[in-house]
Amino acid sequence: MTKRIVVVGGDAAGMSAATTALRHSSSGALEVVVLERGHYTSYSACGIPYWISGAVSDGDQLIARSAQEHRDAGIDVRMRTEATAIDLDKRSVSVRGADGAGDDTLGFDELVIATGARPIRPPLDGIDAAGIFGVQSLEDGEAIIKDLANSHHRQAVVVGAGYIGVELAEAMVVRGLETTILDQAPQPFTQLDPDMGALVRTAMEGLGITVATDTPVEGFDAGHDGRVRAVRTPDGAFPADIVVLGLGVTPNAALAEEAGLRIGESGGIVTDVRMRAGDGVWSGGDCVQVPHRISGKGVNVALGTHANKHGRIIGVNLAGGYGAFPGVIGTAISKVCDLEIGRTGLGEAEAAAAGFGYVTATVESTTTAGYFPGAREMTVKVLAEQRTGRLLGAQIVGREGSAKRIDVFATAVWNHMTVEEMTFMDLSYAPPFSPVWDAVLIAARAAAKAVQADIPASPV
Amino acid sequence: MTKRIVVVGGDAAGMSAATTALRHSSSGALEVVVLERGHYTSYSACGIPYWISGAVSDGDQLIARSAQEHRDAGIDVRMRTEATAIDLDKRSVSVRGADGAGDDTLGFDELVIATGARPIRPPLDGIDAAGIFGVQSLEDGEAIIKDLANSHHRQAVVVGAGYIGVELAEAMVVRGLETTILDQAPQPFTQLDPDMGALVRTAMEGLGITVATDTPVEGFDAGHDGRVRAVRTPDGAFPADIVVLGLGVTPNAALAEEAGLRIGESGGIVTDVRMRAGDGVWSGGDCVQVPHRISGKGVNVALGTHANKHGRIIGVNLAGGYGAFPGVIGTAISKVCDLEIGRTGLGEAEAAAAGFGYVTATVESTTTAGYFPGAREMTVKVLAEQRTGRLLGAQIVGREGSAKRIDVFATAVWNHMTVEEMTFMDLSYAPPFSPVWDAVLIAARAAAKAVQADIPASPV
Repeated sequence: MTKRIVVVGGDAAGMSAATTALRHSSSGALEVVVLERGHYTSYSACGIPYWISGAVSDGDQLIARSAQEHRDAGIDVRMRTEATAIDLDKRSVSVRGADGAGDDTLGFDELVIATGARPIRPPLDGIDAAGIFGVQSLEDGEAIIKDLANSHHRQAVVVGAGYIGVELAEAMVVRGLETTILDQAPQPFTQLDPDMGALVRTAMEGLGITVATDTPVEGFDAGHDGRVRAVRTPDGAFPADIVVLGLGVTPNAALAEEAGLRIGESGGIVTDVRMRAGDGVWSGGDCVQVPHRISGKGVNVALGTHANKHGRIIGVNLAGGYGAFPGVIGTAISKVCDLEIGRTGLGEAEAAAAGFGYVTATVESTTTAGYFPGAREMTVKVLAEQRTGRLLGAQIVGREGSAKRIDVFATAVWNHMTVEEMTFMDLSYAPPFSPVWDAVLIAARAAAKAVQADIPASPV
Repeated sequence: MTKRIVVVGGDAAGMSAATTALRHSSSGALEVVVLERGHYTSYSACGIPYWISGAVSDGDQLIARSAQEHRDAGIDVRMRTEATAIDLDKRSVSVRGADGAGDDTLGFDELVIATGARPIRPPLDGIDAAGIFGVQSLEDGEAIIKDLANSHHRQAVVVGAGYIGVELAEAMVVRGLETTILDQAPQPFTQLDPDMGALVRTAMEGLGITVATDTPVEGFDAGHDGRVRAVRTPDGAFPADIVVLGLGVTPNAALAEEAGLRIGESGGIVTDVRMRAGDGVWSGGDCVQVPHRISGKGVNVALGTHANKHGRIIGVNLAGGYGAFPGVIGTAISKVCDLEIGRTGLGEAEAAAAGFGYVTATVESTTTAGYFPGAREMTVKVLAEQRTGRLLGAQIVGREGSAKRIDVFATAVWNHMTVEEMTFMDLSYAPPFSPVWDAVLIAARAAAKAVQADIPASPV
């Protein structure tokens, strides 16, 4: 008896679930139908800024596997086909086909909701003017590249100074545009603490980027041709030949919510540890809420690496195996030209919100022995819990070769290490790779000292 | 009452102990005398190959702190002064001063033995010919650089294909010499398993280096001028205008042994967890034996990073605090031009010798997303214990940007993680930094599969 699995959404989580389910089940056991409303499957949205910059020469390179390749692997992929409603009682999905192909209803035995995220696009005056772009889909990337190619733009404004924003700012600089990045927050990159964000600001300014913070966008001015001319803010108008919105994303959970599934405080679909949102209903990728292993809170983290993991876990479960997602710790990495940024665990605001008392330590180090040619600077900040010294989080801002060290902190956070325990860890050393004390160890030691210094006086 | 501390050996461990002791004790509590038989204190022997290659322009850059700087910090540094005997009952050290300054006896309250390691120099026929160099001290580096500058050498032979050997081979290639590297082992780099060592061989050959393995050196032929002309092996003679010995080092523990201190199976001085070799006698650096956290065996690892840690721990203890060394896991990193090599934990032979049943998995991955420009290849091998899946070790051979990932494995080994637990760890991802599944995760998953596949059939 063949079980029919309907997957809503054909990007990382959905396609990984479909592929894994088929690979782990016996032939003919599963029929897998994937509904994808866009033009592409399995693409790397994270790669779009590098396609815009020209570092990646062809958008096709961002497609890990095409719809046809998935079909060849036995998946019934239906492109430009949207799921408009889910009926959990009747076990069916309402489907609207492309190009007026009409509505249909598709029954399922098990359902995978992998509807991803929507780019945040506030209803600002003039936001629909020509020349204002989002960067969620390959179509968005195509549109920007075409716009840049067919014009003589001089000035670009990027709205939003988070991951996507700073990567887009890099792309605009590489394309030779005068670039301004706007954010309503007091520092760029609010995924870092403000002191570390200030380093990102300085470095971006050093790259010739104008960084305007505390600067909310009020609206957009367009010319007679309907094309954007400037971005309006309380601090005046910023002239713009092209505007790119890098305001982040929000879980695309409406379909699940309307079907009666539970939505968490993060806006994402709530699942159990096996990524099950309901009876025979699974969900993964940018649309779900996952547990943060340190804060204990439900969070939504839109990242391809998590989406892939969710998909694989769902696929194993669909095939009758057992897969479980252990949660996240908020690890992330980014870069702006040769400036690298990494973070894991909790920042100060998150630690405080989660009820942790904490101390911090910030150190400077280099990517290689100080005397080695090409030694690059980095700043490392560590948060440790008061008294216990448990590592709560770390942040790195530095030059080329620094940020991937965040994975060492991530592994330590994952294992509930204390900063004291980290101090004498056996990390690799040779002059081309680190100073005798690697930056991770220097930072851990400084944090251990801060923990020791912080012991409160005994109560009298 | 001032306590006198005598430190034998003025490099990383000794000087770090001296500096830390003074910094952590009240003024006047300690008198610290350091005896150093050479010309330099606190220098980076690990940096010598890069000085020879010219990457580091000046040998002084390898000196972290000069004798005078240490004196300014209140340490009584006596250069070119050798300790010739230790009398633990009389609490004194016999001292021979430089330039016939005569013998003396120096009493101590506490003693630090930081005598380092001696380069291995087998008593081969002709080994004392001119043009054959070791690379342990700055004087060695100076001599090689002078020799290369004052001549028109064409052919270099490096004897020994371990860390020092491959780094010296790089230096000779960079200096424009036709370079041959000889080793009696069947593969270069025996700190790796043979299959991974084979990758190093191929890469070195790709760099134009002649790699002759299974090739023990029988002796050296010299010309009428007394200068080396060739290296004799069972496979014939390898012509050489200059020979560099990179055969590794052995603990310099004779002084301690003669004083009646315990020497371990590794040849290093045995200490307790606080680095105490006897009553009021401390020892650290290349001359000691330390516990391997995974094999449980006593090992000697001559690396500046450990020496620094030992020194700091001894210093804290000398000042009346509490410091303890947690042991090592055999983490190391090296490079030959753009080829990078990392390892941590146990290799196959070590795992077998320690009595572990194990499985292995080897995967190929890239340093960035595959579509990202400049993505570089790497091979990652993982050893996991049978049944439990505990991570026992990992090895990386790859191009620029790959080997520092060994620290993630090191942190996982340190924390006794299983490869299964590692599979869904929250490591950083962005296209310029890794594929969606970082190489560490891909390797862990492959190893987890190998563990699952390896479960033996139930006994009937």
